[in-house]
Amino acid sequence: MNTYLKRRNRLRELLSGESGIVVFVGNVESAAQYRDNGYKWRQDSNWLYFFGIDEPRFAAIMDLDGGGETVYADDFGIDDIIWMGPMPSVASLAEGAGVPASAPYAAFDEAVRAALAAGRRVHFLPVSRYYNAVKLSGLLGVAPDALFSVGKKGCPLASEPLVRAVVKMRLVKDAEEIALLDAAAELGFNMHTTARKGIRLGRIEQEIVGEMEGSTLGAGWGVSFATILTQHGEIFHCHSHEAPIEPGRLLLIDAGAESNAHYASDHTRTYPTGGKFTPRQRDIYQIVYECNELAFEMTRPGVPYRDCHLAAVRHMLDRLGQLGIVRGDVDEMAADGIGGLFMPHGLGHNMGLDVHDMEDLGENFVGYDDDQTRSSQLGLGSLRMARRLTPGNVITDEPGIYFIPALIAQWKAEGTDKGRVCYNRLEQYLDFGGIRLEDDVLITPDGARRLGSRRLPIAPDEVEAAMAEDVMKR
Amino acid sequence: MNTYLKRRNRLRELLSGESGIVVFVGNVESAAQYRDNGYKWRQDSNWLYFFGIDEPRFAAIMDLDGGGETVYADDFGIDDIIWMGPMPSVASLAEGAGVPASAPYAAFDEAVRAALAAGRRVHFLPVSRYYNAVKLSGLLGVAPDALFSVGKKGCPLASEPLVRAVVKMRLVKDAEEIALLDAAAELGFNMHTTARKGIRLGRIEQEIVGEMEGSTLGAGWGVSFATILTQHGEIFHCHSHEAPIEPGRLLLIDAGAESNAHYASDHTRTYPTGGKFTPRQRDIYQIVYECNELAFEMTRPGVPYRDCHLAAVRHMLDRLGQLGIVRGDVDEMAADGIGGLFMPHGLGHNMGLDVHDMEDLGENFVGYDDDQTRSSQLGLGSLRMARRLTPGNVITDEPGIYFIPALIAQWKAEGTDKGRVCYNRLEQYLDFGGIRLEDDVLITPDGARRLGSRRLPIAPDEVEAAMAEDVMKR
Repeated sequence: MNTYLKRRNRLRELLSGESGIVVFVGNVESAAQYRDNGYKWRQDSNWLYFFGIDEPRFAAIMDLDGGGETVYADDFGIDDIIWMGPMPSVASLAEGAGVPASAPYAAFDEAVRAALAAGRRVHFLPVSRYYNAVKLSGLLGVAPDALFSVGKKGCPLASEPLVRAVVKMRLVKDAEEIALLDAAAELGFNMHTTARKGIRLGRIEQEIVGEMEGSTLGAGWGVSFATILTQHGEIFHCHSHEAPIEPGRLLLIDAGAESNAHYASDHTRTYPTGGKFTPRQRDIYQIVYECNELAFEMTRPGVPYRDCHLAAVRHMLDRLGQLGIVRGDVDEMAADGIGGLFMPHGLGHNMGLDVHDMEDLGENFVGYDDDQTRSSQLGLGSLRMARRLTPGNVITDEPGIYFIPALIAQWKAEGTDKGRVCYNRLEQYLDFGGIRLEDDVLITPDGARRLGSRRLPIAPDEVEAAMAEDVMKR
Repeated sequence: MNTYLKRRNRLRELLSGESGIVVFVGNVESAAQYRDNGYKWRQDSNWLYFFGIDEPRFAAIMDLDGGGETVYADDFGIDDIIWMGPMPSVASLAEGAGVPASAPYAAFDEAVRAALAAGRRVHFLPVSRYYNAVKLSGLLGVAPDALFSVGKKGCPLASEPLVRAVVKMRLVKDAEEIALLDAAAELGFNMHTTARKGIRLGRIEQEIVGEMEGSTLGAGWGVSFATILTQHGEIFHCHSHEAPIEPGRLLLIDAGAESNAHYASDHTRTYPTGGKFTPRQRDIYQIVYECNELAFEMTRPGVPYRDCHLAAVRHMLDRLGQLGIVRGDVDEMAADGIGGLFMPHGLGHNMGLDVHDMEDLGENFVGYDDDQTRSSQLGLGSLRMARRLTPGNVITDEPGIYFIPALIAQWKAEGTDKGRVCYNRLEQYLDFGGIRLEDDVLITPDGARRLGSRRLPIAPDEVEAAMAEDVMKR
């Protein structure tokens, strides 16, 4: 059966207690400078999942009562053909998605208004872009800003049954999706390998970014998120790439590829800029590496991913204690959230069509089981995936240790650490930067495996050996 | 004096007959998948021109009566610093733009509401993105869609005096801008040279796109618009790059670089896929090349650029007549718009911070003098720059000849050509594709020069020689 029809039928099943209509609004082109000079075209992920039509200005309605489905879009006229080339008819695109009925784009608005006028419920997902917010806002008579998910909380106006059903489906990747994610991981492997080979003292970071993103654009849609390539790994989303590569630093590269089928990869590696770790770098790197491995070893069906996060943090605190940076009982330190000073983010997130999969639907709907309450602690509070793992889940495993001068200063001034931090030791690391090591992991029926056929070098010796080989091959 | 202050003072001068406040709204991050996974950050061009602060979530107000100016944005808290790194204070960024006063972002809304409540005029430019539309919509109490320019006509609600003043300023590039445009042209040269070297039979088009965009990302912001690289040059905005390079075809590459300073380049070259033009390809190519050269020769201060367009089209028709594709008096054919069948676009457009400079302000305000009326003919009607040229203008020179099967069929069926087209001859070209040749040109006090230090090979012999050399160097 048609993949998209199968998915929509499953969605109907999950919504069997509901009535009304479900509306889907695909994306339109998004302006970079102005309407006609857009960013690279990217379809809405939920639309791709349920309809697969990778063209702008499409919408659809699924009738939960009558059972009908209609795709709404306009056929191309001669002007469109001159500027954009011939497009298959809307009817044939709809048919390809398993939808027998199609109608002009404007008829979508009429159909939604008619449903509202008849007192029927209009189920919709939180929007991810302002165009869609404006479109639905006009139909529903609410402010555009009210239609976005508000971070962890979701979107109060959107249909919770619909959100829960979509999350339930997209959380578990089917065989077709797993193959696409494996392929995206290959792109990610090549992208990161290109980057590593480009590391040379004196080069500008941006030159390496160009090479790695070029490799991805040559074989995929592009990057799955804005590349982080920085000698300031302690800044999580550092998108400035103007610095020359300096000796003795760590270069953190967190980057992902998006395939032409729009599935993501997301890997992080951290390299010694000169090819060899200093002893101090190796100490910290080794801890992060152990945390990554430990979390992966624990990753299997039935385990809450929050437990993997907590285990990694406890191990990190234990090992930082051995270095004299913290002191005290590991469990007490973990309970007090001391780990957040070093890793103020979560161990990982879901990944799929989106690099942070479904984040537009509300982080807690996506990442938390109904009986799990999200922490407000720094670090644990940022954990985006806490759920009990199920075969077909795809997650990232990305522990990190960072030395963030502003945060350290704040904790010291406010006594947040309750005496657990040895500041005279810690402050020797203020110029260190940060390390993160990230893999993409599929939960299998009996455990877990990393996506893709090859793992990027990660053990400290492996990394140094790979960099030495890169130099040899130049 | 501070560049931005100088520009704003000039704007004040041009608006000396007006009162009220002028509002500027910078961009926020734009969602690719959802709010937190955005497209690459790109500031609004008008904001960059008048304030230069390349950070999201800034706004400003210029008081035309009192003379004050205020920049509105929020300083970073500890969470922002963890995720995005330290940012200079808003006050210091404002000072860098020559603005002594700053206030929190939310105070912008209050200030606009206060001005409206006091019955003062609020001057604003048409918006280019939905976020800005929603923001202004809420303040002004109008529908978001009413705040965009509607193609040629501009935006009826925006301030026409403000639009005219900004256009007047940005149309004439100052020495600083010209240096930045020359630098962007160098990026464009490198990008196109990388692409040309990558042309080999059997490669997938996307591989070449990756290499050329990678070269640009390594040295600049990225591409100034979505790359067109296609063996179907007859489709103007062909963004599909899945085809293998086939023998005997023409590969049209229309691509531009955007520098880190956000100035654009925009060049088009068309290559024989195997390195040698067929006689039929060379015939058509030679005509396009002559049109490009002819238009450039005519380009100098005082000449309406529409005249360059018309001269190029007349020459094209004359030469197509020699090939037996059209017949009749050239002037009559030109007057009847026969050129539009072969070149359904204009000769060129303004270029600067935007690749189609200021298109968000309304095409006719930007490209037409007050005494010029825009044609509705196919081709001439799409001319985006018709004005009398002035030193400091930067324009593209991009004639093309295309054989568009759907358009030819339509003209034949409807008799649009009034007997001027020899269809039995023309229909031999239905599988030809299209050719466009584009340079970026600066109007100088006594003529014009192409931007950048080197011109991409363009004469047919030059192109073949360059491609032969590429093969030698492999």
